[in-house]
Amino acid sequence: MEKLIKPGELIILYADEKSEYLVVYDKGKKISTHLGILNLPENLKFGTSIKTHLEKRFWVLPPSTKDLSVKVERLTTIIYPKDAGLMLIETGVGAGSRVIEVGSGSGALTIILAKCVGKDGKVYSFEKNSKFLELARKNVEKAGLSYAVEFFEKDPLKEGFGLEDIDAIFVDVPEPWKFVDKAWESLKPGGFWASLSPNIEQVQKVYRELNGLFTRIKTYEVILRPILIREEKTRPKEWIISHTGYLTFGQKILFFEEL
Amino acid sequence: MEKLIKPGELIILYADEKSEYLVVYDKGKKISTHLGILNLPENLKFGTSIKTHLEKRFWVLPPSTKDLSVKVERLTTIIYPKDAGLMLIETGVGAGSRVIEVGSGSGALTIILAKCVGKDGKVYSFEKNSKFLELARKNVEKAGLSYAVEFFEKDPLKEGFGLEDIDAIFVDVPEPWKFVDKAWESLKPGGFWASLSPNIEQVQKVYRELNGLFTRIKTYEVILRPILIREEKTRPKEWIISHTGYLTFGQKILFFEEL
Amino acid sequence: MEKLIKPGELIILYADEKSEYLVVYDKGKKISTHLGILNLPENLKFGTSIKTHLEKRFWVLPPSTKDLSVKVERLTTIIYPKDAGLMLIETGVGAGSRVIEVGSGSGALTIILAKCVGKDGKVYSFEKNSKFLELARKNVEKAGLSYAVEFFEKDPLKEGFGLEDIDAIFVDVPEPWKFVDKAWESLKPGGFWASLSPNIEQVQKVYRELNGLFTRIKTYEVILRPILIREEKTRPKEWIISHTGYLTFGQKILFFEEL
Amino acid sequence: MEKLIKPGELIILYADEKSEYLVVYDKGKKISTHLGILNLPENLKFGTSIKTHLEKRFWVLPPSTKDLSVKVERLTTIIYPKDAGLMLIETGVGAGSRVIEVGSGSGALTIILAKCVGKDGKVYSFEKNSKFLELARKNVEKAGLSYAVEFFEKDPLKEGFGLEDIDAIFVDVPEPWKFVDKAWESLKPGGFWASLSPNIEQVQKVYRELNGLFTRIKTYEVILRPILIREEKTRPKEWIISHTGYLTFGQKILFFEEL
Repeated sequence: MEKLIKPGELIILYADEKSEYLVVYDKGKKISTHLGILNLPENLKFGTSIKTHLEKRFWVLPPSTKDLSVKVERLTTIIYPKDAGLMLIETGVGAGSRVIEVGSGSGALTIILAKCVGKDGKVYSFEKNSKFLELARKNVEKAGLSYAVEFFEKDPLKEGFGLEDIDAIFVDVPEPWKFVDKAWESLKPGGFWASLSPNIEQVQKVYRELNGLFTRIKTYEVILRPILIREEKTRPKEWIISHTGYLTFGQKILFFEEL
Repeated sequence: MEKLIKPGELIILYADEKSEYLVVYDKGKKISTHLGILNLPENLKFGTSIKTHLEKRFWVLPPSTKDLSVKVERLTTIIYPKDAGLMLIETGVGAGSRVIEVGSGSGALTIILAKCVGKDGKVYSFEKNSKFLELARKNVEKAGLSYAVEFFEKDPLKEGFGLEDIDAIFVDVPEPWKFVDKAWESLKPGGFWASLSPNIEQVQKVYRELNGLFTRIKTYEVILRPILIREEKTRPKEWIISHTGYLTFGQKILFFEEL
Repeated sequence: MEKLIKPGELIILYADEKSEYLVVYDKGKKISTHLGILNLPENLKFGTSIKTHLEKRFWVLPPSTKDLSVKVERLTTIIYPKDAGLMLIETGVGAGSRVIEVGSGSGALTIILAKCVGKDGKVYSFEKNSKFLELARKNVEKAGLSYAVEFFEKDPLKEGFGLEDIDAIFVDVPEPWKFVDKAWESLKPGGFWASLSPNIEQVQKVYRELNGLFTRIKTYEVILRPILIREEKTRPKEWIISHTGYLTFGQKILFFEEL
Repeated sequence: MEKLIKPGELIILYADEKSEYLVVYDKGKKISTHLGILNLPENLKFGTSIKTHLEKRFWVLPPSTKDLSVKVERLTTIIYPKDAGLMLIETGVGAGSRVIEVGSGSGALTIILAKCVGKDGKVYSFEKNSKFLELARKNVEKAGLSYAVEFFEKDPLKEGFGLEDIDAIFVDVPEPWKFVDKAWESLKPGGFWASLSPNIEQVQKVYRELNGLFTRIKTYEVILRPILIREEKTRPKEWIISHTGYLTFGQKILFFEEL
């Protein structure tokens, strides 16, 4: 027997690529879509479909990590799944990891990290802008991931992170190079630096700062091409976001001591 | 005080992009590199460096998830980190997830999934080729992730997976479309399908099979461009792997029942 | 002394990337732009600038081949410069070449080909839709390239091209594979086939038809990334057209005769 | 009746993608290939095939512009067809154009330009290294295009180009920014600058120099993906050259004079 969706659970309502909504389930709730109004019924189950008053069908689905992150309420630009995915793999973050995030932004990356580290790990998320912090906290809560996140409303440049033995740090701020020293202090030896910047000059500055404190420094760009698979009309999507940012990684080294 | 590396732990020895080795640590162990011989000392710590008999410096670092997966001993082609990263985000896999993998191959994707689901989750990995299965098992063990993986030496096409309520299934075999029915049986409603195929005809066949059993079907290609950041010589790397495969995702639906 | 622009000459009026206009020069002519109205003066010279009634500066420049082709009046989709450029190089078209084009469309490719073959060559352009043909003819005339183009309002599938010893044929129609036989008849031995199709299934069909009549068959996709070079903000443009079509090339062979 | 190939004509001998040779035809000439020895017969015609002593078939084909340029004897890196193609379209070069090239290199771009400008145009090619110059001259001669090229063994930085009213200048040297002033002097108003540089810092320097002397400045990167079309195995080629260089364009303006 299939389980019923509980009030408060996040669900995806999906009709087609341009008609998908992330909403909090509650029985009797009305959702306005551009294909008509959906009336969420009692006893709703995943994998079933409901129809709008215009008879348009929407599928009821559990959200992916991507849904949870890109469909958050936003005050800032957010990280793209293609970039976040590589960040997880390049840093060794997994269930149980303890990681720092600067800054929280709208909480999109916070959610991805929380989902991955789980209840045995922790995401320490730093944000000096209180409006962003509140939004990020709200979005993480909605995603049901608060147990894995601790928020700090402070500027680590002034006070440092106040944390030790951290596995990895994720830096998504306009001036990431300023955080290299503080990151070094909080990371465990060999711990991972990961930053994301849209412009090449930002990456060049990060390199200069990482140099001598981190090793195995490398930069990638990830390009995602959606492919349309259709009878007699298979081709890559025409318009895409070709550039979001450059990802830079490194690993902390201890000061040169000859052995 | 920094912790010492324990015998049996995996470490990365890194001199430069072309000189990095994943090895099991043991004191006194000798590692032959093309920059000379490394003699692993007692009391080795991450973040420090050691030198070859030719005075070439290698950094001692903890491995990333990428290292654990791409540096496995191989009998098969393996998944690329850029592809695996997107798979995690598009499927909602996280700490605690229960997922199926077909087939185990050399264990590269098994390791990435295990790292993410952790001890509260489980990767059920199916492989009918016993040689591959033994290698995958050995690689997972070496990575210290056996606690999160259960291997099955059987052909799910004959007997099914024999599992229920699975969060996501990852299919990396030459004929993924043949597994759609069995995948549907084992997945929870709304559960995720993820497959990887190099050729477009394979994807077209997967679409035909998914249609009616899964929804929100989509295909992506991920292109990774390494960027060389160097004084006065910043540019994308010249030669790259431009294509590894197409990633196809979908979510299980229950049979059409009008509400 | 700089030459004056003659009435009837095509000029580019350029303020910035989003404000560039291709117009026919005439003294006293008024051009409405979204930066105000330009009043084209007597004695206008290339390389100088004029201002709108809102004091916005526009540079007066000679058009590039790209301008002539992408800024034509359109009734159809047109070829992209990135694709047309490769077509020229892959086919050996140059000054003096005699080439066929099917169909004329809005004349964008016709213009590019005419510019390259010059007065010693000829572009034979076939179009069965008379509205398109008239537009293409008008656009070619405006570009001052009529001397290099001969238009045919007919369907080559019915009557053939009625031409011989052609250097290359450019096929930009929805069903290019249907023209392979007729192309073979008109090309000189070793002559070049070039076709453009957005979908992979179209290319597959072209391959099947070319096989046995043409050799050295190959397909490319060209991706163009505009790069923004700006103080401290250098990066690839975010949104781009990632896919326009696949380019397929081949060279005519004579029937298998053993030597 | 098909024409016979004349002694001294360039021909392509093609067996498959990895077995293609550009050679000067002469009857009785022996060509060693890795598929065996080809003995070029008398009365050879394009579009026919001949066999090696190992019974491997080679097609006899006329060369494309790409063949003429990429298969030259080389002492330098050469321009890629994908880049040269866009250069032609972005600059308005066509039959009859008068263009400057710095430096000649191995003559690959010289050949592409000569093919396009034809006998009514001219390519003025500057090279200060006499070894390169001799090679470029030899390659252009072999391609049968000497009538369209004039070589200058001199350093334009010292003496200028000594040419006027030029349509476009193509700059493919390590320090293109140094040539901006001299280029400006030789170009007609509105004339085109085109340069190619592998590194982003080079482009940044070109921008600083162009600024104020040129307008409509823009930079592109062209990425070429070969696509393998094969029964049940259609996909992009795995390994590709992802980056060759950045292309920068601009148009000469006269000094600011208010109208």
